[in-house]
Amino acid sequence: MTRGLFITFEGIEGSGKSTQVGRLAAHLRDAGRDVVVTREPGGTATGDRIRGILLDPDLSALTPTTEMLLFAANRAQHVRETVRPALDRGAVVLCDRYLHSSLAYQAWARGLGRDTVMAANAPAIDGLLPDRVLLLDLPIDDAFARAAARGRLDRIEQAGRAFHEGVQRGFHEERALDPDRFATIDANQPEGAVFADILAALAPLLGDPA
Amino acid sequence: MTRGLFITFEGIEGSGKSTQVGRLAAHLRDAGRDVVVTREPGGTATGDRIRGILLDPDLSALTPTTEMLLFAANRAQHVRETVRPALDRGAVVLCDRYLHSSLAYQAWARGLGRDTVMAANAPAIDGLLPDRVLLLDLPIDDAFARAAARGRLDRIEQAGRAFHEGVQRGFHEERALDPDRFATIDANQPEGAVFADILAALAPLLGDPA
Repeated sequence: MTRGLFITFEGIEGSGKSTQVGRLAAHLRDAGRDVVVTREPGGTATGDRIRGILLDPDLSALTPTTEMLLFAANRAQHVRETVRPALDRGAVVLCDRYLHSSLAYQAWARGLGRDTVMAANAPAIDGLLPDRVLLLDLPIDDAFARAAARGRLDRIEQAGRAFHEGVQRGFHEERALDPDRFATIDANQPEGAVFADILAALAPLLGDPA
Repeated sequence: MTRGLFITFEGIEGSGKSTQVGRLAAHLRDAGRDVVVTREPGGTATGDRIRGILLDPDLSALTPTTEMLLFAANRAQHVRETVRPALDRGAVVLCDRYLHSSLAYQAWARGLGRDTVMAANAPAIDGLLPDRVLLLDLPIDDAFARAAARGRLDRIEQAGRAFHEGVQRGFHEERALDPDRFATIDANQPEGAVFADILAALAPLLGDPA
């Protein structure tokens, strides 16, 4: 059976992940590939309900452990209902955030620790790791400036600068633990240049269509 | 600091847990005790939202792993927001289902295994085990007959007889692993007799007011 390709987009808020997911999906579809675009939290009907809990401002008192387990529950459903079936039929799955966001946010920035987050996520991912993690990397100040330009500074500032620095450090720690899986993309460039770097990073995996 | 008492009610559907929780709460309040009645899933605003996902018939395709992690997420919030604060002020907390339901349903009946379910629940319970687990025990046939008499046979039958037998076996396995924590109550008796047995089982913990 031909197996597809699982590519995840990771990075701090304001790093431009969604934009690049959209560009890559359009590019691959133009080249005739079967592409599934998805995201976490979300990705299934159940996941959308879980996302609603995670993003509800009235439930701001969610404990870090509750958050971690809700993300893991979302992931369990997402892997089985959406990602694996698409990979099994040979599709390219582009996913906006996955396991490494849980590690960066919950294990590192929230301080729950890597062992705890991996223990809760092991049954969720059921062995499914991305073929490539695209880490869209840029300095925190630039991410904040971008968010401000798009009128979304509130969202990124709510958690505070120290928190986002912790998340960024978390992504860098995860990359150091599994360097071959990660491709670091300089996100501090014009959109087209970022996209060109993404295509270059994926060329060995995508073959001709890229 | 005086610590309260954490009593959980476990058993298959139709074992009469909710009725007995209500009776015990009234009895203890009459005796002047500070009593908190709670349940899982639920027990907090977040938990009620998670309960809504778990019980939504339109989301019947929830995978066993998703279910397990949603119950654990609910528990993480419940322990920190409801149960521990009540115990810290000295209350008696009566909880309709807790960790041992996850073990009986997810680990044993769904077959996820005890290690997997404990790994996901360890961060959720954060070391908090019940002072006493009241296992309301009765033959499956009698539980089915009770559910039928209350017009709730649909709910109990949906999952099938073999599933409920697996749950019951799970409770018995858990009791065998931690016998001193469990008190087995013969639930195949009139309500008043069940309640008398519960009071007798709790007398060593409750002291005078029982």
